[in-house]
Amino acid sequence: MERIIRVNTRTGEIATTPVPERMARLGGRGLIADIMVDEVSPICHPLGRGNKLIFAPGLLGGTPVPASGRLSIGGKSPLTGGIKESNVGGEAGQKLARIGVRALILEDAPDEPTDRILYLNKDRVEWIDDDPIAGRSVQDSLTLLRERFGPSCGLLVIGPAGEMKMAAAGIATTGPESVQTRYAARGGLGAVMGAKGVKGIVIDDRGTTNYPGYDQARFKESYRTYTQMLLASPKLEARRRYGTAGIVVTANELGLLPTRNFSRGSCDGIDEISGVRLAETIAARGGEGRSGVACMTGCVIKCSNVYPDQTGKKKVATLQYENIALLGSNCGITNLDGIAELNALCNDIGLDAIEIGGVLGVAMEAGLIRFGDVNGAADLLRRIGEGEPLGRILGEGVAFTGRALGSRRVPAVNGQGIPGYDPRGLKGNGVTYVTSPMGADHTAGNAFGTAKTLDPLSKKGQVENSRKLQIRGVILDTFGLCLFARGPFVERPGLLVELIFGRFGWDLAFADITQAAAETLRLERRFNDAAGSSDRSCDVPEFMRYEPLPPHNTVYDITPEETAKIWEIEPDRDEF
Amino acid sequence: MERIIRVNTRTGEIATTPVPERMARLGGRGLIADIMVDEVSPICHPLGRGNKLIFAPGLLGGTPVPASGRLSIGGKSPLTGGIKESNVGGEAGQKLARIGVRALILEDAPDEPTDRILYLNKDRVEWIDDDPIAGRSVQDSLTLLRERFGPSCGLLVIGPAGEMKMAAAGIATTGPESVQTRYAARGGLGAVMGAKGVKGIVIDDRGTTNYPGYDQARFKESYRTYTQMLLASPKLEARRRYGTAGIVVTANELGLLPTRNFSRGSCDGIDEISGVRLAETIAARGGEGRSGVACMTGCVIKCSNVYPDQTGKKKVATLQYENIALLGSNCGITNLDGIAELNALCNDIGLDAIEIGGVLGVAMEAGLIRFGDVNGAADLLRRIGEGEPLGRILGEGVAFTGRALGSRRVPAVNGQGIPGYDPRGLKGNGVTYVTSPMGADHTAGNAFGTAKTLDPLSKKGQVENSRKLQIRGVILDTFGLCLFARGPFVERPGLLVELIFGRFGWDLAFADITQAAAETLRLERRFNDAAGSSDRSCDVPEFMRYEPLPPHNTVYDITPEETAKIWEIEPDRDEF
Repeated sequence: MERIIRVNTRTGEIATTPVPERMARLGGRGLIADIMVDEVSPICHPLGRGNKLIFAPGLLGGTPVPASGRLSIGGKSPLTGGIKESNVGGEAGQKLARIGVRALILEDAPDEPTDRILYLNKDRVEWIDDDPIAGRSVQDSLTLLRERFGPSCGLLVIGPAGEMKMAAAGIATTGPESVQTRYAARGGLGAVMGAKGVKGIVIDDRGTTNYPGYDQARFKESYRTYTQMLLASPKLEARRRYGTAGIVVTANELGLLPTRNFSRGSCDGIDEISGVRLAETIAARGGEGRSGVACMTGCVIKCSNVYPDQTGKKKVATLQYENIALLGSNCGITNLDGIAELNALCNDIGLDAIEIGGVLGVAMEAGLIRFGDVNGAADLLRRIGEGEPLGRILGEGVAFTGRALGSRRVPAVNGQGIPGYDPRGLKGNGVTYVTSPMGADHTAGNAFGTAKTLDPLSKKGQVENSRKLQIRGVILDTFGLCLFARGPFVERPGLLVELIFGRFGWDLAFADITQAAAETLRLERRFNDAAGSSDRSCDVPEFMRYEPLPPHNTVYDITPEETAKIWEIEPDRDEF
Repeated sequence: MERIIRVNTRTGEIATTPVPERMARLGGRGLIADIMVDEVSPICHPLGRGNKLIFAPGLLGGTPVPASGRLSIGGKSPLTGGIKESNVGGEAGQKLARIGVRALILEDAPDEPTDRILYLNKDRVEWIDDDPIAGRSVQDSLTLLRERFGPSCGLLVIGPAGEMKMAAAGIATTGPESVQTRYAARGGLGAVMGAKGVKGIVIDDRGTTNYPGYDQARFKESYRTYTQMLLASPKLEARRRYGTAGIVVTANELGLLPTRNFSRGSCDGIDEISGVRLAETIAARGGEGRSGVACMTGCVIKCSNVYPDQTGKKKVATLQYENIALLGSNCGITNLDGIAELNALCNDIGLDAIEIGGVLGVAMEAGLIRFGDVNGAADLLRRIGEGEPLGRILGEGVAFTGRALGSRRVPAVNGQGIPGYDPRGLKGNGVTYVTSPMGADHTAGNAFGTAKTLDPLSKKGQVENSRKLQIRGVILDTFGLCLFARGPFVERPGLLVELIFGRFGWDLAFADITQAAAETLRLERRFNDAAGSSDRSCDVPEFMRYEPLPPHNTVYDITPEETAKIWEIEPDRDEF
């Protein structure tokens, strides 16, 4: 039976209950919104007793549906001060679902800093008190936990950044065999986990099987159709070969690629950091390097990679678009080895590489190091890991760093660094950064995918488009589906209805699903309004409204009044 | 004729206009609220082009009315993200009024960091481009400007902290003969002045006289009555002798004195830092030391002092309660020389000593230095002045420092450090810290004065009391009156009506004055709501709700729901 596990991190008490009726049809991001609004005071200290850290697999988690095992992690963000759902691939979500956990909720907070490990399997939850990983890097922690608990366990850990409760800290998990390091990176939830005194979570799903589904035959049929559609997608080959890095050149051509602290939208030497170069380098170096890797068992898209160093040894896995944009062009670094080194450091210290790429850009512009200085950047990252004063500034994220340095060109919205799409070059993303309850997040309503059909430099239609994409994002995040798995549902929304019927026996119309997603957005906005993190009181960075972005030399000109109309739009409920 | 001066700090353009009809009856804080709501986007970057920095004398400024020459400085606060009016004594307000300036508004912002001086007299406003004080300490700046522009000029300067745009930076001014250094300390407006590229403002009132008043005879009569009442106050002698430090022992007895990062409400060795000890030390050391000093010409209260070092040389002027509480007991420092040294450093670097006292307490608790370590604290302050990374953290204030250090015991509300009254020991101040648009400010509705009549440990009546005191605060801040000048008006509200008639010929009822003050609060709250700095979304620090404060072992228990009722209260409009 599915259950909710509540762990009091101060008293150590653990309580397990069945999923209450009210939450029966909620999972992932939707469930997190419900719990946060119901149980957490919006004005609580993000690192205090009042905040909760919630791990919730999507509703399709623990099933054989490909790319449906993503995990939602949520709480009040120390970066934005609002609600945050940070979404991650890898194995943990799938395994948490398989052991029957709809939500694991870390509550309260220890009075003194602690570093404990929580172990869960299908029958029990317990504290591991002889913690072998306290203070360790993410990589060491994963290795040690894997040795101790077996290679098949799902792992969630924080690095030194999270232990130090830095707001740029993420929560790491792994892909199959721990080859990949995946991050629930955004929003600083690693700091919340650190504040809860939990260094690692071990999810042992031995003795479990995938969920059979309510109507096994219909379930199988629908997910086979879905799988075939995924496999038939014309985008599949590029995704397998280049991963998300496949869009580097396009982003550059569109003039929206963050470059030198968002001072340009395109950069010289783009071919050095393109998806093609990435794939060629991996192929040429061989060794542990691989393209077309799945971040979770059963995924047929396989957009991940293992980027090797010059000797063929794994340097970082996976190297993605966002990190190439933020740690690369945004820092004036246009070689993949340099980017991979910085990315590996972020991964090891336990940092959101997007946030940190923004931080480095601000630090470079302020003259701490020069643009393009990989060694200097690596040194700054080490200082974060060591908790030096300068590191403590940088580890708190883009907005914080900008404030400490008295900078005005700070690429952050509502306290959170902007991901790899300059809103002057992709105006729809400006709308999303401002209005999404998740803030400047690349998965909460990213208009990049629609840049070919909707002029990204014109404001026309951007508000409506963002609204639609935000709803879509909630649906994906609620069912545990990857953004790259959206294609079949965009083409045939009814397929999701069929999958849900097959899995649960719920007789839904597609409009019920969009309605529920709209309700999730409403709850999230309610939390943020009460938390003082309302979309009505934030904007794109001021300089983007007057500083034209080369090469198109556009400014961001969607007004707050135009943006505010987004919540009056009644979207097409039958459209995904 | 009175006028409004607008200075574009980017283009250098200066525009002078008569006071528009709409602003005819607005001054000081009331005028600032009006301008901010009308002209400044609440979501602008506090250090960006959109923010404005407004200097507005109170309506009674430039008259012979004692203690009415205070200056209001306002803008969007980089600390709270909301509106801020920071209020200061000294000579600048009086002189700005005498040269006929109702408001000086610094607009826009230079693209590159600059350090210019603005010179104003009754006839003209001009830039002084050969700035002799760029990068200088506050004391050096004041001395150099006084040498250059003559001893009678009013001066407003920022120190290195403001030049570095640190959010704990204040704006300094002087008392008569530049003996006193007074601060518009709170809210980080020194950073806004730094962002405007203005290092100093010189107000030359030579050739001006005091305002005669609309009805000279009635004006004279009313301010003579007021002066006599001030002089007849039973509190006068204590205020002259001990200054604000006269309440140190009472605060300790009431158990609300911030002690060791707000972990206690009383401290050992209180007699070492009492008002009596302060007066005795000044008397015993002689030299430049003095008690009973006026911070502005014509004040009959004379609550200020010059605290000398052991050789009799001026160490700091003035040494006040807030700074003794925050830099002293809150840091475990219970000797006046130690406190005076830290206070002098804050004054020289250009920092709000209240904010910095809170910062040091957090830093001490986090183990950066130990409680009571004056030398260690002085070293940290020097690091702020030098802009070292650790200094940049500390210079951004209490909340920022707490976040950088991952602390949970952070004595700040809505981004701003709590002044010298622990809300667990003086519950009315908790209400004010949360609900006042000025946040945790000791002059925006301080319930200390009513602690004898309203049990400070009980929640009863605190919300109503805070409401009344907040209205009173707005009235004082709008007319340029000192908090210590409230007595005659509390006793006889009609006296203020008479003063205003005598000065302006306005035929007002006292209820009109309270009504206007309520309107100012409404405007300020409107700004803050739109800025995401609403009182609905902030609270006292979370730990104060569960950690009992010795010696009374009370927690702060006024609920957000109880607090929120404050704006439903219809206050007695005839009461001051």
